[in-house]
Formats: sequence, C-alpha cells, structure tokens
Amino acid sequence: VSGHQVVPPVVLAFDVGGTSIKAAAFDAAFDGSDLQLRGEPLAEARRPSPQGPAVLDAIVEAAEELRAALDDDQRGRVAAAGVAMLGLVDVAGGRARHSVNLDLHDLDVVTPLTERLGVPVALGHDVGAAGLAEYRVGSLRVDDPFVVVIGTGIAAVSFVDGRPITGSGGQAGEFGHVVVRPGGRECPCGGRGCLETVASAGAIARIYEERSGTPVAGALDVLARTGSDPVAAEVWDDATSALADGLLTVCALLAPGAIVLGGGLGEAGVALTGRVQAHLKERIHVGVAPPVLSATLGSRAGVIGAALIALDALDNLERSR
Amino acid sequence: VSGHQVVPPVVLAFDVGGTSIKAAAFDAAFDGSDLQLRGEPLAEARRPSPQGPAVLDAIVEAAEELRAALDDDQRGRVAAAGVAMLGLVDVAGGRARHSVNLDLHDLDVVTPLTERLGVPVALGHDVGAAGLAEYRVGSLRVDDPFVVVIGTGIAAVSFVDGRPITGSGGQAGEFGHVVVRPGGRECPCGGRGCLETVASAGAIARIYEERSGTPVAGALDVLARTGSDPVAAEVWDDATSALADGLLTVCALLAPGAIVLGGGLGEAGVALTGRVQAHLKERIHVGVAPPVLSATLGSRAGVIGAALIALDALDNLERSR
Repeated sequence: VSGHQVVPPVVLAFDVGGTSIKAAAFDAAFDGSDLQLRGEPLAEARRPSPQGPAVLDAIVEAAEELRAALDDDQRGRVAAAGVAMLGLVDVAGGRARHSVNLDLHDLDVVTPLTERLGVPVALGHDVGAAGLAEYRVGSLRVDDPFVVVIGTGIAAVSFVDGRPITGSGGQAGEFGHVVVRPGGRECPCGGRGCLETVASAGAIARIYEERSGTPVAGALDVLARTGSDPVAAEVWDDATSALADGLLTVCALLAPGAIVLGGGLGEAGVALTGRVQAHLKERIHVGVAPPVLSATLGSRAGVIGAALIALDALDNLERSR
Repeated sequence: VSGHQVVPPVVLAFDVGGTSIKAAAFDAAFDGSDLQLRGEPLAEARRPSPQGPAVLDAIVEAAEELRAALDDDQRGRVAAAGVAMLGLVDVAGGRARHSVNLDLHDLDVVTPLTERLGVPVALGHDVGAAGLAEYRVGSLRVDDPFVVVIGTGIAAVSFVDGRPITGSGGQAGEFGHVVVRPGGRECPCGGRGCLETVASAGAIARIYEERSGTPVAGALDVLARTGSDPVAAEVWDDATSALADGLLTVCALLAPGAIVLGGGLGEAGVALTGRVQAHLKERIHVGVAPPVLSATLGSRAGVIGAALIALDALDNLERSR
C-alpha cells in the first residue's frame, strides 16, 4: 500500500449465509503501512438469501443500499468489496463451487460482481472469514487458535503461524463432520455421528424438542432451561461433551494455542466454554488442554471478515503494482 | 549459503528411537543456492538406545564411529549434526522434554552435543524428521501431504504450504492418540480407543496373538497370513478401517493433498495403502478422499530427516551471518 494509495479506502462487505446476506461498509485507515478497519460500520444492509445465481442480484442491491447510505466523500472512496460465502468456495478462482443451502453449483462470483460493483471483488469462505475476523479484529490475541463457528452447522478455521489452513481445494475446516459418535445420528452429509448432529445450535434445539416434546426458540433457549429441566441439562451436556471429543482430536493433531468458540452458540459464553473446557481437561491425556475462549465479535464476525478479505485484496493489488 | 561457504559440507545424522540409534554421515552439494543431500550415506553406524542422559554418550560414540569411517577430506568437511529424537522435543530450546521410552526428562541435548561433537547441532522430532525426509527427498512430489509414520506407535506430520505444522509447544502430530474407538482398548497414554491401540504395527501383532493364540514376528507377519488365516484377515481389516476412520477426521479438518503412509508398517505397500484408500472412499462424505500413497524411504526416513535438519541449521547459520 505504502506510497501508491494515500486516500484511505472504504470497503463493502457481504456475508452470504443460508438465510440472509449481511452487508456493511467499513472505513479503513493506515496503521504504518498496513490497512486496518476503522471501528463501527459506516452503513449496514440486510437481504434474504435467494436461491441460485440470483444471490448475485441480491448482493448488488445490498451494495446499492450501502452506497446510498454513505456521504459523497465516503462513496468516492469505495475501493473494493469482499464476499464471504457459505458452502464450498474456490477462493483463487473466485467461484462458489457448491452450496446445498443456496442451490449453487460452480457459479462465477468474482467476474460478474467486479463488473457490476465497479470495484475489485475478493471471495472467501464464510467460516474462514469469521475466523479471520476473530483472530485479527476480535479482542482475543492468542497464537495459532482453532476458531470454531457454531450455528446451524459447525465449521472451524485453524491458524498456523498467523495464517489460516485452507487445505486442498479450500476444503479444510469441516470440523462439524468429524465423527464423534460412530454409528450415531444420520447427518445430511451422508455420514453418521458427525459432531454437528449433536452439537450445532440446530441439533441442540432439535434433540431437546425430540426428547422433551416441548418446542424451543433455539439452542440458547435450551441452555436457559438447564437449571430446572433435566432433559435440557442432559442435551446441553451431550453437546458440550461431543464438542470436547472433537476438540480432543484437534489438540492431538494440531496442538492449537487456544480454542475459540463463536457463532450463534458462542453467545452462551462461559456456559459453553466452561463446560467444554471441563470435558476437555477430563479427557485429555496427550499434551495439555489449551484455553477455551469465547469469540468476541458475535454474529458480525462474518461481515467483518468479508471486509478484511477486501482489504487484503487491495493490499495485494497495491503490492503487485 | 551463497558465497560464504564454498566447500560442500558433510553432515552427521542421528535418529534416536526407542530401541536403537541409527547414525549416518551424508555428503551435501549445492543446487543453485540450496544445499541438498547427495545420494547414499558415506558411512553408517548403529547403537542400542540407552536409558536416560547416557543417550548423549551413545550419540558421541556413534559420531566417532562415523568419523573413523570417513576419509580425511570428508572428515575435514563435517560441518553440522542433526538429531531426530522420539518423545516430546523442544526444538527451539534444543531439549528433550519428555520421553517415557528413553526415560528422558528435560535433557539439554544441543549444548553438550555441540561441545562434544565440535560442530553446530540441531534437534528435531523423529516423526517430524521422517516426514520432512519423505516430503523433500522421497520420490513423492505432492502438495501438502499428511505423512503418517506407523511403527511401535503412530505419529504424523502435516504440511501446509510446504512447512510442517508443529503446534503449540511442538506437540502437534499425535495422530496415534486420535480416538477412533470410543470406550475401546486402553492406551498407555491413559485414554481409550486411541488409533494406535488398533492400528500400530505393535497393536496389530499383539491383537493377532491374543485372538489366535499364535505368536508372530510382527505386523508384516500378520499381513502375510491374511490370505489363509481369517483371524489375520480380520485383524488387518480392523487396523486399516481404524486408520481410515482417523484419516477421515484429518480430511475433514485439514483437507491434505495426499496421505502418505510410512514407518515399519509402510513396507506393506499397497496391501496397506489400497485397503486404507478403499475404506476411506467408502466413508468419506464431505470433500474428496485424497490419494493414499506409500512412503518411499522406509526405515531410513528418520536418519535422512536428521541430516536435513542439520543442513537447514547450516543454511540458517549462513543466512544470519
């Protein structure tokens, strides 16, 4: 960045999830030669996620809404956009390779959006983006964390020497599909006993409803009942035990410096991290259990991560000039 | 290296295992500005591994034997030594932190050996060294492999962007202690159902002997019986299934570009890799099963890795001048 670009850029960020697209515009500033996000978003927008290629139209509409909310100076400084997308993403190729929830199959995202938004566009994976945000912007400052995002599903991103592990074809981080209960519940992926069949926010609510016959608003509602309802307590304990079993494997393979739990379920705070830490300490035999911490950015992690992806792309563009 | 050191160095390499120390002297040559090992070892030596700090004496004796076998020119070019050691190793601090098999507890390895061998000494983990050798010297040229070493125990090293993941405190790679059979056999680590209780070379021989009442020479002997002995076939299938279960987790978390199976059991070749690949393909639901390949260096991977550690240390020394 140094030298070439003296005007601090504004970036547009889009977190494309299974139910909605969260969009925000962020101001950036130079910190030495590095670009950093500046505080709160300048503008925010939200759209339901449409199925199929119409997702691109929804992103363009959200971008127009964001731009309309900016002042002239800010609008003139819009320099890049970042899109964090669920499902399988080909980051280098700029394509959404596969998403069951959005009915996407090998859709070029970057080429049409670059043209329609009029600025360079960078693509990333939603969980990877959220993990990046927790790591770089969140108040946690830990070495090489394993950042877990627990919502409808479970995914994770592992940092090594400050960089996320993306894996062959960008397919790393499928922590929700680690088998923790062999022969257990069927998973939509086709397997059985995957972590997310027991410990995702969706699974916690679903299993509680099955066992108790009582409808709940979600996993945090199940947590709220654990003090007085033994079924809720058991479901919560099963979920946190399963998370610990999965994390035990992560500790053996990767020995992360810390485990960070975020996403919707992360809002449970110490009721989640404390139980998982206790189960993990009980089970760990090889090595030492790392601290289990709450993520700090909540449901905004994805859109902040999308903004970071845009900033990184700008940075790379400048460096390659 | 460029410029400073024009004489190609000879390095001494020591692979310190639970039962023996394998030692070798290797010639190196410049390939552009990089140092590379040159072919076959100039000399080899072997010592039983003593318990406790006497391991250092055994290394010094092995070094003397190697030097005695070199000619004057080669002896004059000995420029560094590399030690690959089992157990927990503090690579940066140059200490053996913990090894049950060798009865080592926080032993300074690098300081006394540097003095006694008269050349710079670098320390590494035995499995890490073997993985490094397979990755850099072995005939396999794959991106970001997960290299598994299967012998008395099971450990692994995962490469990301060409560099091994070491983890917090150098404790990554304990693939043998991933739980694949919850509530299963007791593991010396204190856990139950760890991969190495079912799939290590030691476990395969032990379980066969238990079930059949027939003593065997080792896991490869069990493999040799699988054609005619249903108990042997079952034990082999259990072991390769368990390996696939563990690797399924690795694929979900890391999406390696290939899986490489080495160590003593790796000598089984396609009888091992083929079965593991088949079990893995059957089980994988998220992502694509990477190729499962045989390591190519066999039991010499560790000592070659120790030589690479010595070369890398020389390279770093030169670059920091």
